[in-house]
Amino acid sequence: MDETAQTRHVSSEYVARLEARDWPGVAALLDADVVYEMPQTRERIRGRDAFLRFNTEYPGDWHLAVRRVVADGRFAALWLDTRVGDERQDACVWLEVGGTGLITRVVDYWPDSYEPPAGREHLAERY
Amino acid sequence: MDETAQTRHVSSEYVARLEARDWPGVAALLDADVVYEMPQTRERIRGRDAFLRFNTEYPGDWHLAVRRVVADGRFAALWLDTRVGDERQDACVWLEVGGTGLITRVVDYWPDSYEPPAGREHLAERY
Repeated sequence: MDETAQTRHVSSEYVARLEARDWPGVAALLDADVVYEMPQTRERIRGRDAFLRFNTEYPGDWHLAVRRVVADGRFAALWLDTRVGDERQDACVWLEVGGTGLITRVVDYWPDSYEPPAGREHLAERY
Repeated sequence: MDETAQTRHVSSEYVARLEARDWPGVAALLDADVVYEMPQTRERIRGRDAFLRFNTEYPGDWHLAVRRVVADGRFAALWLDTRVGDERQDACVWLEVGGTGLITRVVDYWPDSYEPPAGREHLAERY
């Protein structure tokens, strides 16, 4: 498997194991010094143990499904469909995989819905 | 150039030509039937002409810079630093390139900043 294929595989497994609450399986994909960032809140979590705790403690019956994985060398971007109860939200995740094949950095964006600004109704349809 | 390299090139040029307001250059990268979607507002713009008009009419002195391009076959993900005046925002863009080498679909996410929910201060630092 080349580097891109390996990154693509790790990325898909990352989501699948989170969704399965397979915590040892998730841990096995993470570098001990993994850094997790949420730029929208400017929060940063350092290390595999804290990252796992963040996920195991995360409230609600959350679910993740991959819409698209784009892998390129040691970088990947994951486009996710997420759901907590009846609430759906898309997520954009940027992954970095180190030389050991383990995830060294995860950056999550959770974009909220909002109403479009006025002035572009002549160009855009709503769906 | 293989498919991934071509997609990576088109993706970088897309941002560079938008930033340069090189409208003929942008148009030359777009399929005539390109579809542009903003899932947060559920807006969809169809066709190269409408998409160019959306960008030329977009208010403010906006600027785009690539933080990362991840390209994989005909798909790419672009992590952008954007700025309007003093206001900075990250953007996540998902591109699709057709068999002709032209961009057939652009999906933009514009995630806003927000305050972190309570209950995870023991795991996260702020930056």
